[in-house]
Amino acid sequence: MTERKIWRGFASDNYAGVHPEILAAIAAVNDGHEIAYGEDSVTARLDAMMQAEFGPQALAFPVFNGTGANVVSLQACLERWEAVIAAESAHINADEGGAPEKMAGLKIWTVPTPDGKLTPELVDSVMFDIGSVHRAQPGAISITNTTEMGTLYTADEIRALADYAHSHDLLLHLDGARLSNAAAALGMRFREFTTDAGVDIVSFGGTKIGALAAEAVVVLNPDLTHKIPFLRKTSMQLASKMRFVSAQLIAVLSNDLWKRNGEHANSMAARLDAGLRALGVEIPNPTQANAVFPIFTAAQTAALQQEYRFYVWNYATGQVRLMCSWDTSVEDVDGLLAAAERVLS
Amino acid sequence: MTERKIWRGFASDNYAGVHPEILAAIAAVNDGHEIAYGEDSVTARLDAMMQAEFGPQALAFPVFNGTGANVVSLQACLERWEAVIAAESAHINADEGGAPEKMAGLKIWTVPTPDGKLTPELVDSVMFDIGSVHRAQPGAISITNTTEMGTLYTADEIRALADYAHSHDLLLHLDGARLSNAAAALGMRFREFTTDAGVDIVSFGGTKIGALAAEAVVVLNPDLTHKIPFLRKTSMQLASKMRFVSAQLIAVLSNDLWKRNGEHANSMAARLDAGLRALGVEIPNPTQANAVFPIFTAAQTAALQQEYRFYVWNYATGQVRLMCSWDTSVEDVDGLLAAAERVLS
Amino acid sequence: MTERKIWRGFASDNYAGVHPEILAAIAAVNDGHEIAYGEDSVTARLDAMMQAEFGPQALAFPVFNGTGANVVSLQACLERWEAVIAAESAHINADEGGAPEKMAGLKIWTVPTPDGKLTPELVDSVMFDIGSVHRAQPGAISITNTTEMGTLYTADEIRALADYAHSHDLLLHLDGARLSNAAAALGMRFREFTTDAGVDIVSFGGTKIGALAAEAVVVLNPDLTHKIPFLRKTSMQLASKMRFVSAQLIAVLSNDLWKRNGEHANSMAARLDAGLRALGVEIPNPTQANAVFPIFTAAQTAALQQEYRFYVWNYATGQVRLMCSWDTSVEDVDGLLAAAERVLS
Amino acid sequence: MTERKIWRGFASDNYAGVHPEILAAIAAVNDGHEIAYGEDSVTARLDAMMQAEFGPQALAFPVFNGTGANVVSLQACLERWEAVIAAESAHINADEGGAPEKMAGLKIWTVPTPDGKLTPELVDSVMFDIGSVHRAQPGAISITNTTEMGTLYTADEIRALADYAHSHDLLLHLDGARLSNAAAALGMRFREFTTDAGVDIVSFGGTKIGALAAEAVVVLNPDLTHKIPFLRKTSMQLASKMRFVSAQLIAVLSNDLWKRNGEHANSMAARLDAGLRALGVEIPNPTQANAVFPIFTAAQTAALQQEYRFYVWNYATGQVRLMCSWDTSVEDVDGLLAAAERVLS
Repeated sequence: MTERKIWRGFASDNYAGVHPEILAAIAAVNDGHEIAYGEDSVTARLDAMMQAEFGPQALAFPVFNGTGANVVSLQACLERWEAVIAAESAHINADEGGAPEKMAGLKIWTVPTPDGKLTPELVDSVMFDIGSVHRAQPGAISITNTTEMGTLYTADEIRALADYAHSHDLLLHLDGARLSNAAAALGMRFREFTTDAGVDIVSFGGTKIGALAAEAVVVLNPDLTHKIPFLRKTSMQLASKMRFVSAQLIAVLSNDLWKRNGEHANSMAARLDAGLRALGVEIPNPTQANAVFPIFTAAQTAALQQEYRFYVWNYATGQVRLMCSWDTSVEDVDGLLAAAERVLS
Repeated sequence: MTERKIWRGFASDNYAGVHPEILAAIAAVNDGHEIAYGEDSVTARLDAMMQAEFGPQALAFPVFNGTGANVVSLQACLERWEAVIAAESAHINADEGGAPEKMAGLKIWTVPTPDGKLTPELVDSVMFDIGSVHRAQPGAISITNTTEMGTLYTADEIRALADYAHSHDLLLHLDGARLSNAAAALGMRFREFTTDAGVDIVSFGGTKIGALAAEAVVVLNPDLTHKIPFLRKTSMQLASKMRFVSAQLIAVLSNDLWKRNGEHANSMAARLDAGLRALGVEIPNPTQANAVFPIFTAAQTAALQQEYRFYVWNYATGQVRLMCSWDTSVEDVDGLLAAAERVLS
Repeated sequence: MTERKIWRGFASDNYAGVHPEILAAIAAVNDGHEIAYGEDSVTARLDAMMQAEFGPQALAFPVFNGTGANVVSLQACLERWEAVIAAESAHINADEGGAPEKMAGLKIWTVPTPDGKLTPELVDSVMFDIGSVHRAQPGAISITNTTEMGTLYTADEIRALADYAHSHDLLLHLDGARLSNAAAALGMRFREFTTDAGVDIVSFGGTKIGALAAEAVVVLNPDLTHKIPFLRKTSMQLASKMRFVSAQLIAVLSNDLWKRNGEHANSMAARLDAGLRALGVEIPNPTQANAVFPIFTAAQTAALQQEYRFYVWNYATGQVRLMCSWDTSVEDVDGLLAAAERVLS
Repeated sequence: MTERKIWRGFASDNYAGVHPEILAAIAAVNDGHEIAYGEDSVTARLDAMMQAEFGPQALAFPVFNGTGANVVSLQACLERWEAVIAAESAHINADEGGAPEKMAGLKIWTVPTPDGKLTPELVDSVMFDIGSVHRAQPGAISITNTTEMGTLYTADEIRALADYAHSHDLLLHLDGARLSNAAAALGMRFREFTTDAGVDIVSFGGTKIGALAAEAVVVLNPDLTHKIPFLRKTSMQLASKMRFVSAQLIAVLSNDLWKRNGEHANSMAARLDAGLRALGVEIPNPTQANAVFPIFTAAQTAALQQEYRFYVWNYATGQVRLMCSWDTSVEDVDGLLAAAERVLS
C-alpha cells in the first residue's frame, strides 16, 4: 500500500495509528491456537495485570470500542426501568448515535455543564420524583475523565460524586476513553482515582492511547461482575480471537506505556497551549490533558485547516479542538504554532 | 510472552491466530494519521476491492464481529415489527446469546432442518398469516453458507431461496462467517453465489479465515445501503481506527488469500474425513467444507480430547465437530487420525 | 347505535361483550375524583380481594391487556440477557406479533408440544449450555392455563414444573388469560394451582371472562414485586383512570363471577363436544375447558361458517376451534349442532 | 361500593370519572358479539367520524393510553437510528418513565423552553451534524397541544413548525392528550390546527376529556398509515374488545362532546384564574386552557391542600398546578377561591 500519503494533524487521537509496542504485542501472541472468546492464556495474564492496577476485586472484560464499553457497563448498572445521569456533553449522550437508547433502552438525564464536569450539586438538580413511576428513576451517574471538553476530574471530585451516588442508591460509572491521559495529568495510578475513589465500573480506553481497537469494561464493584460476560455477548462486543484484544491492553499496561503515552500527549498539548497563548490566542478553558480548545476567527480556522486537520467545536464561538495523541511530535506542535503565527499576523 | 504454550487442535477456526499476510497488512498501514471512522484511504481501497468481487453496486461496511454483522444486516432488512426466518441451528438463533432479540428486537421464526439448510419448502412452512398483526410478519430469510452443520448451499439453491424471498416480498440475508470456505468448496468467486444468485445482503467473514477481528456487511441491494452507516454506529460496530479493520479485509481479498486459506482448510477436512471413514468411523453428514462431524462413543471422545481439543456437537448422538482452519497442517490431521486409530482399537 | 346487527358465534371469547355485573361495577365507581394511576380507593379494595384469593403475599397490578400482562411479567422474571422457555404454541410466541422480543428483548426458547403443555422433560430438552454466554440463558418457564390448545394443566403438573424451575434457578410464569376457565375446570380456587403450586407470577385474565379490558399481573413471589410498578409504566400498561380497570377485576372476583362464567363457558363446550361426537365428528384432543377443536372437511367448515363465525386452527388437518364464552347460550350450542347435523348429512 | 368517599379537586383531569354520555355509549354497544381487535362495526363507525373531523385521508387507530399513542406514533415516524426533538418539559421526555427509550429505542433531543412550546428557532438549535452517524439524526419533531405547561399553540405556530419540519425532512407529531381543550381554546375544529396545519400524526386524547381509557393514533400522513396496525400490536396497545374503546371515542366526537367538555373545563380555569388574580395571587403564565399555574408560599399551599388536592409544579418557585376537568363545577372553583382568600388573609 505504498500509495498512502503520510500526514499528521490535530483532529483526534484516534486518527493516530498503533504504537509499535502494541503492534509487537499482537504479533507476539500469534503462534498456535488459543481458546476463543476469552478463555485464553493471554486474557488470563491481562486479568492479573488489571488486578495489579485496579485492585484484587477488579475484573477486566475486553471489548472492541468505547461505545461498547459504555453500553455494556451501563446495562450492568441499571435496571430495565432506570436512567443514567450524565453531562449534556457526555459521549454517551452526544456522540454515540443514540446507541445507549437504541441498543439498551437507557434513558439519559442530561445536565448542562460549563466544562463537561458533573458535581454533586449538578446531579442533585435532576434527582427529584424519586420513587415515582412517571419519571425514569436514576440508577447511575456517568462521568468522563478526561472529559469531552478536555477537562479533568481530580480524585477528590470523583470521590465526592461516588459518595453522593452511593448515599442516593446510585452507581458511579466512569467513561475512561482517555483514562491514561487523566492518570498522567493527575500524576496518579489508575486505582487512586477509580477504585480508591469509589467508582463502581470503568470503561477503560486503549484505542486512543495507542491500541488498534481495544477497550475494557473494568468492574470494580463485585456485585456487577457476573453480569458482564452475558451483557458483553448480547451487546455484540465479545471478540472470538480475544487474545489479540487482550494483548493490546497488556501492552498498554506493560512498562507503563499508558503513562508514557499519556504524559507525552499531555505535554504536547501543554506546549501547544503555551505557544498559542504567547501568540495572544484566547483559550477559555484550562488545558488539563491532551486537548486544547482555542478560539479562532472563521478565516483563521480556514487558513489553519489548509495545513493541519482539526475540528471546529463550536461554530458560534469559533472554539476549535486541537487534540494531541501519542504520536504528536514537537515538530507537529511547532509547525502548527508557526502556521498560527502566520495566520494571525 | 514467552510462557505461552503452543498447541493446535480442531475446536474452532477462531482458535487459530492471524495469517501472516494479514498481520503484515495491518503493520503496512500504520504510519501517520488517517481520518477515523471509515473515511480513510485504506477503507476507500477496500471499497474498490469489494466492488471488484461483488459487483459495482456493492458496498462494504467493516465491522468487528459476526454477530455485529448479522444484527446490523438484519436491522436493515426488517421493519420494526418484522421477523426473520432462519434454520433452528442458525448462529443468529443458537449462538449469539439472544443479541438479535435483545439489541434489535428481532423475532426469529425458526425451522428445524436436517442439515442446517433452508429450502423454499421449509421456509414456506412458516409463511402463514401474512398480513396479520398477531403473527410477527416475516420480512427476510437468513441463511448461512457454509452452514453451522458444515454443509454447503449451491448457487442454485441460494437462487431458489432468493426467488422465493423476492416473490414473497422478503429479503435474503446470507451469514457468511465462512463465506471463503463456501466459495472454495463451490469453486466460485463470491459474486457467483451471492450477487448473481439474488442475495440482498451478506455478513462477510474475515476472522475465521485468518483475520484478527474483521467482518463486513456487504450490501448488494442498493435500497439498503443508506441505512448501514447509521445502524453500524448505533449497533456499536463502528471502529474508530477503521483502517486496521479494512486492511485485514484487503489482505483477505489480496492475491485470493481467502481462496488459498479456504481451499487449504477444506482440504484438511477432506483428508480428515477420508481418514476417519477408512477407520470405520460413522460420519452422518457429507463433509463439504472445513468441518467434519463424526460420531464417537463418549469414551472415545474423552480419550481423543486428551490429545486434541474439539467440541461435542450432540451429547445424545455422540456427534462431535472437528473444525479445520487456515493453519491446520497435514501433521495435525495425521496426528488426530493416529490418535483415533489408537482409541478405536 | 341502533344499526348494530346483533349476532353470536364461536370465534373467540373476546368477541363477547361485557358481563352486566362488570358494566355495573364500572358505573358504580364513577362519581367524584380518585387519585390517578392506581392510588385510588377502588384499587386498594382490589388488592385486598386479590390477596384473599392468592394469599397474603400476593399483589395485583392491573393492566390493559394480556400481551401487556405477559411482557411486564416476563421482564420482571428475566435479566437483560436471559430467555424464557415456552411451548411453541404459546401466545407469547405465536400470537403477540413479536411484542416480547420487540418491546423487551426477550428471547423465547420454544418447545414443540402435542397439546400445548410443557412438562419437565420437555423443558429439560432446551436446558443445555447452562452458564455459556453463547446461548441465551433460560431464566424462566412460561406456561398457559388453560392452554392455547384448550387443554388444562392440573395443579400437580404445575407443581412439577415449578419444582423443576426452582431447582434449576428458573422462575415460573403462568399466562392466565383463561385462568377462570382453568379454575372452573379444575374445581379449584385460583391459589390452589398457582400460589400453592409454586407459580411465581401470573398474568390474570379478566377480558375473556367478561371484562371490558382488564387483566392483572399478580405477583406471588415477593422478590419480584418492587419491579412491577416501574415495568408496568415503561411498558405503557399503566391506566390513568385505574379505578375503572380495578372495578372490572373486583367484579370478576365478586360473588365468584369468574367461577360462574368459567363453569358456564366450560359446560357449553362440553355440551358442544358431546353433541359433535354424537354426530360422529372427530375431536382429537379432549375438551377440558371452553374450547372444542373438531375436525371438519373444508366444505363442511365453509358451510358451517355461513351460519356461525369460528376460526380454522390448522388448514392442513381441517381442525377448527369452537370457543364458548360467558354469553354462549344453550340455544347457540344447539343451533351449531343442528347446523353441523345438516352439513354432515 | 357504597364506602367510596366522594370528593373533587384540582389535581388532574384524569382524577375525574367518565362522562355519562361516554358511559352510556359503552353500554350501548354491549349486546352480542363483534369481531375482536378492531374489525368491528363500532370501530368502522369511528373511522368515518374521524375522517369527518380530520379529513378523508385520516385514519384513526384506538389505543389504551397516551404513552401508548405517543410511542406508537413516534415509532412510525422514526427509522431505527433516528431521534425526535421535543421540549424538555414534554410528556414523552419527563413523564413516561422512559417508555419511548425503553420500549422503542427512541432518542429524544430535548430543548429547554420557557413555556413548554417549541419554535422553529428552538428546534433549529439542535439541528446540527445532519448526516453524521455520531449524532442520532433527528427524524421528527414532537409538540404537545395544549402543552404540559398549560399553554397553547396557535394554528399558525403549528404550521410554522410543520413547514420547518418538512423543509428539513422531518415529520411533525402532535401529542394531543388535551387536544379537545386546545381546540376549544382556539375555537377551531381539530383539522384546522392539525391536518390543515401540516401535522403528520396525532396522539388523540380521549381519557382526559371524559373517557374511561381511550386514545387514538390519528394518521394524517398516508405514508405512515400501513405501519400503525403492526406497531400498535407490538407495542401492546391493541385492545381485543376494541368496540368499547371505539365507542368511547365516538361519544367524544358525538354532538361535539369534546367541545362542550373542553370549553367547560377551560372556562372553569378562566374563572379560577380571574378569581386568584383578583386576590393578588401571582400567575406567571397566561391561562390559555384548563390549567392555572399560580404561585403560593409553601405554607399557603399546605393550607390549601387541606381542602383540595393539587400538585406542586416547582418546589423552588412555589408554582402549583390547578387543573380543571370536564366535571369541575362553579362550586368547586368558588370553593377553592374562598379557601384561597382565607389562606391569603
